[in-house]
Amino acid sequence: MEKNKIKIGLIGLGTVGTGVFKTLQPYENIEITKVAVKNINKPRNIENFDNSILTTDCYEVVNDPEIDIVCELIGGVEPAFSLIKKAIENGKHIVTANKELLAKHGEELFNFAEKHNKVILYEAAIAGGIPLIMPIKTILAGNKINKIEAILNGTTNYILTKMDVQGASYADVLKEAQGLGYAETDPTGDVEGFDAAYKITTLATIAFKKRIKLENVYREGITNVRAQDMLAANDLGYKIKLIASAKLDENGNADVRVHPMLISKKSTLAHIDYVTNAVSLSGHPVGSITLSGPGAGEFPTASSVIGDILAIAAELGKTDYLLPMMRCCHDETANCIDVKDTINKYYISINAKNNKGVIGKIGTICAENDISLASIVQRCVSEDNTADITVITELVQEKNMQNAIKQIEQDGNIVNSLIRVQV
Amino acid sequence: MEKNKIKIGLIGLGTVGTGVFKTLQPYENIEITKVAVKNINKPRNIENFDNSILTTDCYEVVNDPEIDIVCELIGGVEPAFSLIKKAIENGKHIVTANKELLAKHGEELFNFAEKHNKVILYEAAIAGGIPLIMPIKTILAGNKINKIEAILNGTTNYILTKMDVQGASYADVLKEAQGLGYAETDPTGDVEGFDAAYKITTLATIAFKKRIKLENVYREGITNVRAQDMLAANDLGYKIKLIASAKLDENGNADVRVHPMLISKKSTLAHIDYVTNAVSLSGHPVGSITLSGPGAGEFPTASSVIGDILAIAAELGKTDYLLPMMRCCHDETANCIDVKDTINKYYISINAKNNKGVIGKIGTICAENDISLASIVQRCVSEDNTADITVITELVQEKNMQNAIKQIEQDGNIVNSLIRVQV
Repeated sequence: MEKNKIKIGLIGLGTVGTGVFKTLQPYENIEITKVAVKNINKPRNIENFDNSILTTDCYEVVNDPEIDIVCELIGGVEPAFSLIKKAIENGKHIVTANKELLAKHGEELFNFAEKHNKVILYEAAIAGGIPLIMPIKTILAGNKINKIEAILNGTTNYILTKMDVQGASYADVLKEAQGLGYAETDPTGDVEGFDAAYKITTLATIAFKKRIKLENVYREGITNVRAQDMLAANDLGYKIKLIASAKLDENGNADVRVHPMLISKKSTLAHIDYVTNAVSLSGHPVGSITLSGPGAGEFPTASSVIGDILAIAAELGKTDYLLPMMRCCHDETANCIDVKDTINKYYISINAKNNKGVIGKIGTICAENDISLASIVQRCVSEDNTADITVITELVQEKNMQNAIKQIEQDGNIVNSLIRVQV
Repeated sequence: MEKNKIKIGLIGLGTVGTGVFKTLQPYENIEITKVAVKNINKPRNIENFDNSILTTDCYEVVNDPEIDIVCELIGGVEPAFSLIKKAIENGKHIVTANKELLAKHGEELFNFAEKHNKVILYEAAIAGGIPLIMPIKTILAGNKINKIEAILNGTTNYILTKMDVQGASYADVLKEAQGLGYAETDPTGDVEGFDAAYKITTLATIAFKKRIKLENVYREGITNVRAQDMLAANDLGYKIKLIASAKLDENGNADVRVHPMLISKKSTLAHIDYVTNAVSLSGHPVGSITLSGPGAGEFPTASSVIGDILAIAAELGKTDYLLPMMRCCHDETANCIDVKDTINKYYISINAKNNKGVIGKIGTICAENDISLASIVQRCVSEDNTADITVITELVQEKNMQNAIKQIEQDGNIVNSLIRVQV
């Protein structure tokens, strides 16, 4: 081991870890000297791999005095949380792809790192290979960003795209996606929006320079989106996407959410298909920009991990306070608006029990709840004398909308879908 | 003037300079202390503007010992070239938006800056507010980028979008764009592709880490694109865009060009309309990413200038060698492939003098020149007994294509358009 090489300790050698290892192999000034894994004897898809650097004890990595940078790629809260803190105490800089840990304990971790004058970089935690965190913190640093709309979960975007293209049901496409490895056996983390919620929590925190608390992020998954909704949305000039969004109003109040949304076909996000991710940011002075690319996978995610490693390596030993722009120390926690108090446009699909006078009745209920309608269309009358009615509203307060839905259902109709529409 | 403030000297207070000035006003640690302008008495659209910081002598800015960073926003080769060199000699770091200067004298400037241990940052020179240069040099640093396809000129993209939407001619839309201020009175720099060529020269240089010489960049403008071509492209599933592209083959040979291109509607670039810019980058390990946003304008461009200023400011005085990743010192100059030796797909629009047997004849000429056809369509027969024939080829060597075109014309037909197709 040469003294002038920068030494990396890897925790986790799964898909991303393997990509990182392979990509760093040709570097002469950087070397991965220790890797913690679950199973030492598992075959590794890496050429010229030296098994002797493996250990099953993660603490051998974080306690190794030779190691400069610890790269945590196991995910989840524990043991990652304790390992990272120990590594920082031991004087290591951190590179991580752990979105859940950052969303749940980011504040504590970043303050802890700052106290020890170490950096935690996490480009790979949000939107895989898309350059996002570093650009926001460096070249976009002069901006007041006040709006984010993003597709941050590849699994759900794959499912929604397939539903749209094939006219297939959620259940059928999920099964297919599981077969192809695009969705996990227990898909809850993706399809219920947890994964996207973790990511938007950290993304909004750095973009707004105010800490967002995960518990204040409204979350709704894609399990109730129907093939019929896709069709209706298409006819109206929209695509349905699982959108992670964050807004900051003039008073500094944040509105952060994850839910399905009708996105205008004129919007770039409407054309982001399958496992691709995309992030649209708006702010002053930059205006509106969109960054898109692969949101997951061995190599795209490795690109971001390695970018972080190279950024640390470039300044390591050359300054007492490296990467000043990449530090994360937001004292202020954002006040978050309750979803009930937000104002949105809605797409509503109603199955009306009795066709006669039903459009008038629905119109009256909406008017009584201060809801203006942009369009109301009766799409088809089935043989059982019910009608499918599609409504698009103007801007409405969420609580008024929920009230109206209750009344429409009390009237004997079935509300099949209530999906917010991009404004 | 407080001693701990970072002092900026501005050369040029036009559109971008004004945006920079306004955006920096609230900063407490950064101050613009001197601004060189053509006309001191011109009214400035800036609140609380102190006229006493103005000078008509640019050398007062670059020679001011108090100034830490010189921000050059006048464009063109001279006097910008001499001013920047003088400023570097005087120990200043440089922020510039000057794409022409970088394309023509980048190598000399960057070497000169490196010799004096100063940085030249230029995020605003390419694609306005889109984060591009800094991401490529930092978070994407671990990638071997081998392909760029980009819309880098807002004026031509505006004209092409309008031609597409309105079915209007180039001449009509240009006139309209000039009226709205989107095109200059002499539009040559934009419509003949010079502006995009400057930008792709520097962009390819940093992406490939090999210097590209401007004279090796093939350049073709949009003045020959017809409304009929737009229509035909649309029918075939394409949009026509002015694409700045750069490819690096496995042998390290570069192919850098600016010309109109048929872009598949499935591609993100096809949906980048009006003055928006976009850059698609492909490489390993990241895969393919696309960055889009405003390519020009007071505030978007100011965002990039200020990002560069803040990056320098963050490290100024804290390290002897600031921003190591942002340095530009490519010793190697790329070998560039002559356009004649490149392989492309083509869209060809032919007006055939005599309908009888003409498709067969064109097919024979193509076959003799080793050109396979993907489709050949006779679109309409006019009253004068001519036929409009649209051909899409498979991959063909450029010199074979040019040869075939000559023979088709010698046969009495008119080749109205020859536009390359995205592969």
